[in-house]
Amino acid sequence: MLETRETSRERVLRVATQLFATQGYHATGMKDLEKASGLGRSSLYHQFPSKEALLFAIITPYLRELIAFGNKLLDTEMPARQRLRELSRGVMRCITENLAATTICFREIHAVTGEHKAELLALHREYEQIWSRVLQAGVDEGAFRRADGLAVKALLGMHHYSYLWLRTDGPGTPEEIADSFCDLLRDGMLSTPPPR
Amino acid sequence: MLETRETSRERVLRVATQLFATQGYHATGMKDLEKASGLGRSSLYHQFPSKEALLFAIITPYLRELIAFGNKLLDTEMPARQRLRELSRGVMRCITENLAATTICFREIHAVTGEHKAELLALHREYEQIWSRVLQAGVDEGAFRRADGLAVKALLGMHHYSYLWLRTDGPGTPEEIADSFCDLLRDGMLSTPPPR
Repeated sequence: MLETRETSRERVLRVATQLFATQGYHATGMKDLEKASGLGRSSLYHQFPSKEALLFAIITPYLRELIAFGNKLLDTEMPARQRLRELSRGVMRCITENLAATTICFREIHAVTGEHKAELLALHREYEQIWSRVLQAGVDEGAFRRADGLAVKALLGMHHYSYLWLRTDGPGTPEEIADSFCDLLRDGMLSTPPPR
Repeated sequence: MLETRETSRERVLRVATQLFATQGYHATGMKDLEKASGLGRSSLYHQFPSKEALLFAIITPYLRELIAFGNKLLDTEMPARQRLRELSRGVMRCITENLAATTICFREIHAVTGEHKAELLALHREYEQIWSRVLQAGVDEGAFRRADGLAVKALLGMHHYSYLWLRTDGPGTPEEIADSFCDLLRDGMLSTPPPR
């Protein structure tokens, strides 16, 4: 059923994502992609002029999705704590649903060059800015203590490192994992925080 | 001066670490390693019977170092909060000092197979256990709220994701970064935590 609806482009993206994730980007040749997609070399090159263009097309959609999701959250009126929780849940859902693409992104990001690299870095900056703005809105309303760069990096690491240990049969739903992280962020690690 | 003290093995490890980190593991051939190390193929194979053996020899020493450091911390009498801070500082120092090796580890861990893979996974489990035991000791003495698996993964992510953004001219010393993380962990993100 999937086969009949898929365009050639979608098919190439699907098989390339699977091959890059399982055997690695460098170890996957255009020949492997032809064989797995059932497309000839000229159709393949028509869709993607280079293997790097294909890599770029795999690792950017989930990032654009996260940016769109985050910007929508920032435009919505809600208390900062709730917004942070929604962002955390959305990010964990997106990583879970795009585990192969996020894995490829972390492993192969250094293989992206030139204009692709500039665009990818700009997308990453835009995404990071969303976390930063969510935290800053919390500081502005007196709900959060911190919105500095290291707090943002800490939160990014906490969430994105999950590509290494998330499995579909993992320790909980994306929402449960996000709530566990937010609980840690909200209350800290101390059993009895000093009164302030 | 470095040249005269270095053994052939050390030289191979040094040039391979540099090449794997800059141009990637797959893109680096034995020919590149011969050229960069100035050793012949037979000497190279004498030191490392395969490129994978070389990869394994690059990505395990810092992990063994972290495990030894963590076990020593666990054997030392100190309050749990101080132990967590010392662990955090030691981990940030180790990542900073071994940035090329940690980068290679994150990118190429899937290229390690067979017995090497089993040993690497065992080392990772041992390392993760250290964080778990440091948190559990804190729960036992009533200083921490949590020592569950997700709290451990959150802390691992927060620290290890830094291989992507740490630079020698980065946002602070390893100790300052660790202290910023521990501050976030201790007090959470809230400006005024609810009294408990």
